[in-house]
Amino acid sequence: MIKITLPDGNVKELESGSTPMDVALSISAGLARNVISAKFNDTVVETATPLHEDGTLTLYTWNEAEGKKAFWHSTSHIVAQALEELYPGIKLTIGPAIENGFYYDVDFGEHTLSEKDFAAIEKKALEIARGKHDFKMRSVSKADALNYYKEEGNEFKIELIENLEDGSITFCDHDTFTDLCRGGHIPNTGIVKAIKILNVAGAYWRGDENKPQLTRVYGISFPKQKELTEYLAMIEEAKKRDHRKLGKELELFTFSQKVGQGLPLWLPKGAALRERLEQFLKKAQKKAGYEMVVTPHIGQKELYVTSGHYAKYGEDSFQPIHTPKEDEEFLLKPMNCPHHCEIYKNKPFSYRELPKRYAEFGTVYRYEQSGELHGLTRVRGFTQDDAHIFCTPEQLDEEFKNVIDLSLYVLGSLGFENFTAQVSVRDLNTPEKYIGSVKNWKKAENAIINAAKEKGLNYIIEEGEAAFYGPKLDFMVKDALGRQWQLGTIQVDYNLPERFDLTYKGSDNEFHRPVMIHRAPFGSMERFIALLLEHTGGNFPLWLIPEQAIVLPVSEKHEKYAEKVLNSLENNEIRALIDDRNETVGKKIREAEMNKLPFMLIVGENEELSNTISVRKHGGEDLGSISLESFADLVSKEINSTLKSF
Amino acid sequence: MIKITLPDGNVKELESGSTPMDVALSISAGLARNVISAKFNDTVVETATPLHEDGTLTLYTWNEAEGKKAFWHSTSHIVAQALEELYPGIKLTIGPAIENGFYYDVDFGEHTLSEKDFAAIEKKALEIARGKHDFKMRSVSKADALNYYKEEGNEFKIELIENLEDGSITFCDHDTFTDLCRGGHIPNTGIVKAIKILNVAGAYWRGDENKPQLTRVYGISFPKQKELTEYLAMIEEAKKRDHRKLGKELELFTFSQKVGQGLPLWLPKGAALRERLEQFLKKAQKKAGYEMVVTPHIGQKELYVTSGHYAKYGEDSFQPIHTPKEDEEFLLKPMNCPHHCEIYKNKPFSYRELPKRYAEFGTVYRYEQSGELHGLTRVRGFTQDDAHIFCTPEQLDEEFKNVIDLSLYVLGSLGFENFTAQVSVRDLNTPEKYIGSVKNWKKAENAIINAAKEKGLNYIIEEGEAAFYGPKLDFMVKDALGRQWQLGTIQVDYNLPERFDLTYKGSDNEFHRPVMIHRAPFGSMERFIALLLEHTGGNFPLWLIPEQAIVLPVSEKHEKYAEKVLNSLENNEIRALIDDRNETVGKKIREAEMNKLPFMLIVGENEELSNTISVRKHGGEDLGSISLESFADLVSKEINSTLKSF
Repeated sequence: MIKITLPDGNVKELESGSTPMDVALSISAGLARNVISAKFNDTVVETATPLHEDGTLTLYTWNEAEGKKAFWHSTSHIVAQALEELYPGIKLTIGPAIENGFYYDVDFGEHTLSEKDFAAIEKKALEIARGKHDFKMRSVSKADALNYYKEEGNEFKIELIENLEDGSITFCDHDTFTDLCRGGHIPNTGIVKAIKILNVAGAYWRGDENKPQLTRVYGISFPKQKELTEYLAMIEEAKKRDHRKLGKELELFTFSQKVGQGLPLWLPKGAALRERLEQFLKKAQKKAGYEMVVTPHIGQKELYVTSGHYAKYGEDSFQPIHTPKEDEEFLLKPMNCPHHCEIYKNKPFSYRELPKRYAEFGTVYRYEQSGELHGLTRVRGFTQDDAHIFCTPEQLDEEFKNVIDLSLYVLGSLGFENFTAQVSVRDLNTPEKYIGSVKNWKKAENAIINAAKEKGLNYIIEEGEAAFYGPKLDFMVKDALGRQWQLGTIQVDYNLPERFDLTYKGSDNEFHRPVMIHRAPFGSMERFIALLLEHTGGNFPLWLIPEQAIVLPVSEKHEKYAEKVLNSLENNEIRALIDDRNETVGKKIREAEMNKLPFMLIVGENEELSNTISVRKHGGEDLGSISLESFADLVSKEINSTLKSF
Repeated sequence: MIKITLPDGNVKELESGSTPMDVALSISAGLARNVISAKFNDTVVETATPLHEDGTLTLYTWNEAEGKKAFWHSTSHIVAQALEELYPGIKLTIGPAIENGFYYDVDFGEHTLSEKDFAAIEKKALEIARGKHDFKMRSVSKADALNYYKEEGNEFKIELIENLEDGSITFCDHDTFTDLCRGGHIPNTGIVKAIKILNVAGAYWRGDENKPQLTRVYGISFPKQKELTEYLAMIEEAKKRDHRKLGKELELFTFSQKVGQGLPLWLPKGAALRERLEQFLKKAQKKAGYEMVVTPHIGQKELYVTSGHYAKYGEDSFQPIHTPKEDEEFLLKPMNCPHHCEIYKNKPFSYRELPKRYAEFGTVYRYEQSGELHGLTRVRGFTQDDAHIFCTPEQLDEEFKNVIDLSLYVLGSLGFENFTAQVSVRDLNTPEKYIGSVKNWKKAENAIINAAKEKGLNYIIEEGEAAFYGPKLDFMVKDALGRQWQLGTIQVDYNLPERFDLTYKGSDNEFHRPVMIHRAPFGSMERFIALLLEHTGGNFPLWLIPEQAIVLPVSEKHEKYAEKVLNSLENNEIRALIDDRNETVGKKIREAEMNKLPFMLIVGENEELSNTISVRKHGGEDLGSISLESFADLVSKEINSTLKSF
């Protein structure tokens, strides 16, 4: 008999040789139907792997990331079999699961795979899947493994095997197909009900451009056809909402090869949008007792030696800036905290003056390889809505709650309703990894967890995920397409106050170390606006959108009245413009729709006579003819429904 | 006979050998009384120098900079004589005029000059001056000159003479004193009525730290005692108003050795002040049709090669930033214009869409030697209130006028009433120095001069002062101490549109080059705030000052009422604070005066009962007990009296 411990602490006693599937059956028939993969003592196993010793077992279904991984990796075997059947003589290399789906790198010899081949591959793969073939792992000696692939004439697999140790080599069989494989499969091919080949790309063997070029076949699969349909619709929608595409269409930002990659230039509409976001946060921060500061975008190397950033990131960063006549070295600032520490050091503080909350929309520069750059989400220069709170350990509780309040206000005002909080704490087994006293760590972790509880957050605790210098809380936000983004980190820091020798005078008249909190509800203006673009598809909340209304005169005759309407809108602080081109109203409406204008105000004979406007909402809803006052009310009501005051 | 042409074009015919003083006498006795120096064909001469050929003559009085230069340089001779008489055996080196006064570098041997010696030097120098000794120039052969100083044992003068050409060497005599000197003196010592030794400092011979150290004696002199008294009072006041001192006292900004010299850190009160200035200008700019943009603080080297800045300033600037893994070079941006050109290039424009006015509070970085740094006026990083207008040549007139309007609005709102405009145009004799067509230059110069005229500016035209790429207008602003500052340059530019190949489609459907206007009404936030501090002595205009009022409860008993008052002030958007320390009201008032608080609101028994406040203005004026509403009215009236809407 062996003892199998489950994640909830329950222990099952079974005969040696029982499989994870046996364990699932011992729990419930429902679980057994759904379990597709398992982990035994930190090793991924199949549901059919016999277990011969005591240990900890985790069972995975499609709903867990590990389950999906096994599902997609198994599909790569199925697709590889389909490819071999369709293109005899090809050479397989590796086929892992990735974040969304899987790929298989294949040497197709003379054949060039293209999109028109995808349907046939999918069809063949699904035929194989429907055969409900079991995935079966078996051990192979190194010699046998090498022989197998020598016969196949596959030099790639031979190279892989040569780097493996004899005794550790396994093959996986299903149907007529065999592959060198470490394991991690679903029970049988029949569970895969939908397969989609997504695209092909070139990839060098082992990522080395001096080695042969292979064809990487990307695909994804699902246990239900409906899920594939939904996924493909989501991908289509994501393409439409790609912030790089929308940013161009809405004239928010651009890039210039001359200025440099990854360095966005904000066009007037984008800069105004940023300004509105900044003013929105500044206003809330002022109420929350923050003080704005302004610091330079460079600092002497010594500053980052003190902060520890230089030792950690110096070599991989933008390199030092020298001066022509003096022996000086400056660095582009990669973060604002060292500068804010120096501001804190400008004068001595007593505990009565704390907390100090220094905020800055600080632009920082971090080197990223040009291949890694992506629109506004991976850039080389970005503006953080940064703030650093310097407080006594006793104030940490209260301050953390205040920061959560502010973060929730920001998320709410921008239409993010679907999020969880992730609390990262120490790994209690490795106390040597963390700086600062155990007492302070406990205090900080409790402060975070209590604050999360008290504020009613849906939170999870991740042990061992804390930084070496303090615990933190991240908001994990789901966008409209269900994708998860990390936003609004709140980080406790015991390290920088130590490194910068920051102090305050306590009520005992002695000097003490303050605690620092780093926080940025947006994260960075660039990434946040990218996220907002993809979340809203460019239909920003009314208070934020570049233009709130467009006046559409039905003919030249009504241009004067249109101007009058525009004036009145401006007096009501409604951002509007006129489309006075000599085009049909139909065309003007279509373009206004495309440009995401929330309100189209059509003015013609009737409107001019009755001193009204005909209001059409984005999407098509007709609000009829109303007075300008009613329209202004309507706009201000809609704004106030999302933008509460803090 | 010789023909002497005067600056106004008049020609005087006089006998050869006549002196500038003769010319002055031929004009008027009044001029002759005041003329103290002259320039003949670009050479500085004495008023007694005989003229033997035709030429152009400019006569200088004390009122001209050149006159002051001769006056102060002459005083350095007088002071040198006094020093020789007081400290026999000293060795004189050089004694030039400087911006304010003069200095003489002297080897005092064993003696250490200090402040307590100044009175005796001034007394002796004035005694000499009263002797009304003429300054007389004479030519000396190199051999004689060397012999003279060999006898004196003055190796410094010998070194100077050795570097001069025989035939070009002159001595200047007055009274018993003789000095090697190129000339440029006033007629006689008697004109100098007031002399002040200001301070002493160490200075290396020829500025070389490997050469002997000398003592630099600084002084200043005036034709009237009253002018000296006024000057010394101004110096005292300037010390009190030194923006570095006030900036510290008012907690506006600081510097950190770790962040780096010349890189200001803006403290909360200073950052808020900047923000108010920025919002003030943003609002006016919005009305004037500007659009804000945001660009990064670095750009690829290629960007500045294109703009021409790299060739011109590259070697003397902060050196290029390299990246760790790619062959890239970036530079800290020294100006925003190249970035704005790239924004203009983002899409094609038709003439109907121009002008485009891109504005940015853009922080730029320029290397200055550490010895040249000075508070906020000479820094290594500063934020320009920059904008670039791209317009057609036909729009230049209108645009220039608009920019003048905006500049006048800015100066007026900040209490600068004393200024002139300086228009810098081509030197028509050197057309090869300028790029762009003559037609466009004429158009631009006319646009500037017409705009200056039409806007009623008090302007002067400076020929040959234009940059090679276009004419400009500068506002020369006098501060409260009578010192002149250059503010709000408006620069026309034909160069960058050419270099960046900027175009627009004209009404003729052809591509044309736009003209660019660079402008910055503040210049930079740093320099402007320094100027504003020194101009106002920290008593900023009410709309701008960090705190507008302070509530002073007469005792602890009235703190609650004081809080109520503060709340009401905040609701009226009046920036206020409370001094609730356990101190006497007298002390609180004294400190509030020192901290430049415009309004002190004293609240005690009577005020609480009558729901009023006792208002005392900065400087002492007592406005009596008034209601909070009346006070809010008073504040808003005072603000509106300086801060008109644009």
